Amino acid sequence: MKKSTHYKDYFLAHRLVTNELVEKIGNNHYNYKPTDTSMSAKELVVHMLTSFYQFVSAAAKRTPTPLHDENADINLTELAKLYTEESVKIIESLAEEDLDEIIDLTAVLGLKLPAEKIINLAIDHEINHKGNLFVYVRGMGHTDLPMFIRK
Amino acid sequence: MKKSTHYKDYFLAHRLVTNELVEKIGNNHYNYKPTDTSMSAKELVVHMLTSFYQFVSAAAKRTPTPLHDENADINLTELAKLYTEESVKIIESLAEEDLDEIIDLTAVLGLKLPAEKIINLAIDHEINHKGNLFVYVRGMGHTDLPMFIRK
Repeated sequence: MKKSTHYKDYFLAHRLVTNELVEKIGNNHYNYKPTDTSMSAKELVVHMLTSFYQFVSAAAKRTPTPLHDENADINLTELAKLYTEESVKIIESLAEEDLDEIIDLTAVLGLKLPAEKIINLAIDHEINHKGNLFVYVRGMGHTDLPMFIRK
Repeated sequence: MKKSTHYKDYFLAHRLVTNELVEKIGNNHYNYKPTDTSMSAKELVVHMLTSFYQFVSAAAKRTPTPLHDENADINLTELAKLYTEESVKIIESLAEEDLDEIIDLTAVLGLKLPAEKIINLAIDHEINHKGNLFVYVRGMGHTDLPMFIRK
């Protein structure tokens, strides 16, 4: 299997679960916070979507073009679909040798990493915040929740 | 780098963060639940520790010996230290060829997987629940929290 296919599949095994959780968040819960010091549901979801897109853009040595206007009214389900599609396209564009390229993330993370490690880090970041999101969605009253990974 | 060393380092990059969060949970919060339908903090931490240990034991074709008495009084910080040490020992015992062995998890997960995939799945499971745990610890009033991964 091509490495880019492996990473696309691995990403989607988690992102499709994220998107399933996002679909459960009604407009009335966009500002929901499970604790006083937490990000709101909307802030958390936007952070997940944009961070992953920025990580894989960096791995592909691309400048991420903004996919949405931060000040516009947002539909989180539609935004999740858009960022997922664009992130998949970038992963699919990566050739085997691109994954070995050393990427300079000094400005954002204070280190340089091979592209492949950035993609792994981006997926770990997704899983971590999806773990947050499960508690948020449960706090909104939902109990019929998916497995943490799609088989 | 040996694959077992890679997996030990990858596991610890997340588990040491888990353990740092666990240290913040006082006895008075062992029964804390962020939502009515959530596991308690104690249940969540015990689930994380024992699941990872059972996953890597299965990957190593070992029967996991119980490391603690479920009915005894538990100190979560000590339990986390014990399970982390024993899980590391099992990962370190894995030779390159052991990681390619197909492990039958039909009884628990309904599928068969190479040992290496089980270890990856176990780490994803750890990250997911650590993501839950961040919300728990924030709900207990803590705001000085670590990064989701240790560099």
